[in-house]
Amino acid sequence: MKNIIEHEISQITKSILDDYGTGRNIDKMDLFNQPSKEEIIAIVEDLLKIVYPGYYRDRSYKIYNIKSNSTVTIEDVAYHLNKQILLALKYTAKEENDVEKLTEQAEKDTVTFLKKIPDVRAMLETDLEAAFQGDPAAKYRDEIILSYPGMFAITVNRLAHELFLLEVPLIPRIMTEYAHSITGIDIHPGATIGKYFFIDHGTGVVVGETTVIGDRVKIYQGVTLGALSTRGGQKLRDVRRHPTIEDDVTIYSGASILGGETVVGKNSVIGSNVFITSSIPADTKVSMKDQDLRWGQ
Amino acid sequence: MKNIIEHEISQITKSILDDYGTGRNIDKMDLFNQPSKEEIIAIVEDLLKIVYPGYYRDRSYKIYNIKSNSTVTIEDVAYHLNKQILLALKYTAKEENDVEKLTEQAEKDTVTFLKKIPDVRAMLETDLEAAFQGDPAAKYRDEIILSYPGMFAITVNRLAHELFLLEVPLIPRIMTEYAHSITGIDIHPGATIGKYFFIDHGTGVVVGETTVIGDRVKIYQGVTLGALSTRGGQKLRDVRRHPTIEDDVTIYSGASILGGETVVGKNSVIGSNVFITSSIPADTKVSMKDQDLRWGQ
Amino acid sequence: MKNIIEHEISQITKSILDDYGTGRNIDKMDLFNQPSKEEIIAIVEDLLKIVYPGYYRDRSYKIYNIKSNSTVTIEDVAYHLNKQILLALKYTAKEENDVEKLTEQAEKDTVTFLKKIPDVRAMLETDLEAAFQGDPAAKYRDEIILSYPGMFAITVNRLAHELFLLEVPLIPRIMTEYAHSITGIDIHPGATIGKYFFIDHGTGVVVGETTVIGDRVKIYQGVTLGALSTRGGQKLRDVRRHPTIEDDVTIYSGASILGGETVVGKNSVIGSNVFITSSIPADTKVSMKDQDLRWGQ
Repeated sequence: MKNIIEHEISQITKSILDDYGTGRNIDKMDLFNQPSKEEIIAIVEDLLKIVYPGYYRDRSYKIYNIKSNSTVTIEDVAYHLNKQILLALKYTAKEENDVEKLTEQAEKDTVTFLKKIPDVRAMLETDLEAAFQGDPAAKYRDEIILSYPGMFAITVNRLAHELFLLEVPLIPRIMTEYAHSITGIDIHPGATIGKYFFIDHGTGVVVGETTVIGDRVKIYQGVTLGALSTRGGQKLRDVRRHPTIEDDVTIYSGASILGGETVVGKNSVIGSNVFITSSIPADTKVSMKDQDLRWGQ
Repeated sequence: MKNIIEHEISQITKSILDDYGTGRNIDKMDLFNQPSKEEIIAIVEDLLKIVYPGYYRDRSYKIYNIKSNSTVTIEDVAYHLNKQILLALKYTAKEENDVEKLTEQAEKDTVTFLKKIPDVRAMLETDLEAAFQGDPAAKYRDEIILSYPGMFAITVNRLAHELFLLEVPLIPRIMTEYAHSITGIDIHPGATIGKYFFIDHGTGVVVGETTVIGDRVKIYQGVTLGALSTRGGQKLRDVRRHPTIEDDVTIYSGASILGGETVVGKNSVIGSNVFITSSIPADTKVSMKDQDLRWGQ
Repeated sequence: MKNIIEHEISQITKSILDDYGTGRNIDKMDLFNQPSKEEIIAIVEDLLKIVYPGYYRDRSYKIYNIKSNSTVTIEDVAYHLNKQILLALKYTAKEENDVEKLTEQAEKDTVTFLKKIPDVRAMLETDLEAAFQGDPAAKYRDEIILSYPGMFAITVNRLAHELFLLEVPLIPRIMTEYAHSITGIDIHPGATIGKYFFIDHGTGVVVGETTVIGDRVKIYQGVTLGALSTRGGQKLRDVRRHPTIEDDVTIYSGASILGGETVVGKNSVIGSNVFITSSIPADTKVSMKDQDLRWGQ
């Protein structure tokens, strides 16, 4: 570039650097005291190897020894997760930053979380079975673990949910948004989800923070389990805003079920594109009547 | 971490390792005899370079020689695809594992697939033209190849479909789910798709395994070509469950067309959000009547 | 592989290489004179570091010095963006390729774009505030910058829009399609978007090229701001095809608002799944009447 351009770039750089100093939220500079998105994604990838020991292997190990390999991975996760939790706790601590107390809390959270892994794995075994039994296009269970976005999303979600229950800040949401960006399935880590959960296709699914889902529930692409209105914004925080879906419910593609007082009773079937804002009794099938269509040539 | 934590981690590691030995589906350890998702994705990336020689180049080649470069890429794909097909065949072989026969089958499949590439490229040239002619926002054909998700999805799908027709297990679905995770477009490798196919925007599109699509069909974001109900689960496998879309049909965003006996006749136009579960004659326009809306202030 | 296979591969390679020479659009070989998708994505990642200096840091810098680090990043972006713009201008120049004039144009565009960064950052600060105030599930502003797909999409879009206004070819769309592949949110770089814009969840959102959006607008997943029909194809290029959304409008999930003459007046609220093809006055709430549902057991 010509000298004149270099001079311009230098001026622009100065004006951008000046612009950083105006105390705005987008300019927070506390970066080395902040949890790292990249580190958290690396932890998720390691957790997948721990959860599915045969499927997500570290390809740099030529001779595979499940025991020593898993041991290394678990120790790695413990070390890095502990570090990220501590950063998250310090970063969000509102009052006096009692480092010793936060350090203890981070270690406690790390250990409690890791102890939950066998329980999470027991749940995921049921999800895998639900996907296999529920999808006629599934020819092998391996196909589901290796390629189904719904299986990926529920795996990350069940892990993130355990951290959410421990009130670890920031990290659970970064985990589920990573899964969202891979799968198009947006499940808030706060959602409570029962056994044998199956999401087919999945793109566009939204499951809100205070949703409660029973056992053996099946949902399709584009289903929203959402809030009726969020115009209240921050005032609605910690209020129950999302529906309850009881056991053995199926919800077909594009259906929206909204509101914190809405309960879909067990065994019910909600048809495609149905829009529900009040409760549905158990054992009910709800579908759209033939739409009022305009025909022409 | 303190010693006490290290002791806890060691206990947790032991309990997770113990948990692996309970014979569950999520614990299958046959990993070196299993096709590799990472390898299959690398093969897809190489196939893209072969299909679009000018667009997906290997940036490590400073001096580009299309002939020698493509030769190396094709040989690479042949070698790695053959290996992955053999792994997939061995892995899913139910009875006696006749290695020699499977080896022969893998080589035959690899060669048959590679011979199809010129035909696939001829189809993709028609898809590119359909995208350019069909989208007023498309200013250059290059833009479509370099950035349109619909073009990416149909490219991967046409390649995967050839492997599906050869009954190669696991690999075709891993390929299309890779495209799904990049584009939000979920086309099963089993779907049969004619020439000049154009998917605009694309997020949320689902095209089921037994769908048949004619020539010059155009679909938009959120369109589902799906099954009426999959409550039958594995019993429905190999049954025709998805619709037939004849030549020159346009399907606008969010429309759902469901069922194995549903045929949308040629030249028909299906409007946004229309929900169809029975056949539509040729030359028909179907759209929602003005919705029954509630107005307030 | 056996010799016979090697011979077959060699034959296949020959037939694919022959197939490249038939002058089709998928075969354009002008690759070193073409903007590079990978380079443009790298530029986007660098722009994110410049826009959010505390959030997207280069992790290879151990000792972080915001001033020297940002200076290097801005100079890098200037150099690489200038190069890509020049490639794009040369590549799409229809008539005599006046290199000197294009070089000057590329430098001018690069400088004009970089000068806009403080303005873009001022807009993004308002978007961040809109997301925080609008989402009861948002506990920290950091969470939004680090993980909300809507924030990512609008960031990339506001940057790409500036290049679109400068009529830089190819690059703006490659930038927004990168964001689309990460977030499922498809905003054309041509769309004009006011302050305090918030997209919640976001998967499946489509905002067309000629859309105009006012200040403090909030939209949810699956909203389409689209064209009524694009059957006219390339003939419709440069015609106003997409709607106008005035200030303070909220549009809930799955709603479609279509057509270049459609205006949604200020303060209006459009309910989930509503389908609108004509204008809506200011201060109006439009929602679906209770759907005509079929109930069964």
